[in-house]
Amino acid sequence: MPEIASTPQPPYYAVIFTSIRTDGDKGYGVMAERMVDLATRQEGFLGMESAREGLGVTVSYWASLEAIAQWKQNVEHREAQRLGHSSWYADFKVRIARVERDYGG
Amino acid sequence: MPEIASTPQPPYYAVIFTSIRTDGDKGYGVMAERMVDLATRQEGFLGMESAREGLGVTVSYWASLEAIAQWKQNVEHREAQRLGHSSWYADFKVRIARVERDYGG
Repeated sequence: MPEIASTPQPPYYAVIFTSIRTDGDKGYGVMAERMVDLATRQEGFLGMESAREGLGVTVSYWASLEAIAQWKQNVEHREAQRLGHSSWYADFKVRIARVERDYGG
Repeated sequence: MPEIASTPQPPYYAVIFTSIRTDGDKGYGVMAERMVDLATRQEGFLGMESAREGLGVTVSYWASLEAIAQWKQNVEHREAQRLGHSSWYADFKVRIARVERDYGG
């Protein structure tokens, strides 16, 4: 079952990662799963929501900009970023945003 | 072809709308298409990225909080919101965030 992330009261941070894949798996599936597993165990990780339908839209939520910076520097994650740029993604964009308000559900 | 939104230099705003559908279309498809068409013509609309894979993740980008507030108050959009709450979505969350930094591509 898909789930909407249970995030705390704002403010907190969102990393909006949008991507378009190249053809073929080339190790992407295994690495993507590993990155989700690793991200959820990072200090300051609050949740993640993801879907791919042509375009991939993944939003991860974090307690602070410092937590985001540390995750970006994680050694395994850096290798995944390198492979993402060189072979998995035809195009991508990362946006760092401060969640100021939320509602719904 | 899916496309990554061409947004301007930050800061700007993102509305992260995450949802889980109920079963059956119930007029959702037509209305969703209409809402995309309508949103893109709103003052301050900057772009949109969307995918559904169990979970639906739609991020729309806006020039200001005022633009977001006006879109939320749009008469047709209000009717879509009402139907969303009452019949299309089993669960949803809206997060309003200020994009502070972006990179990639």
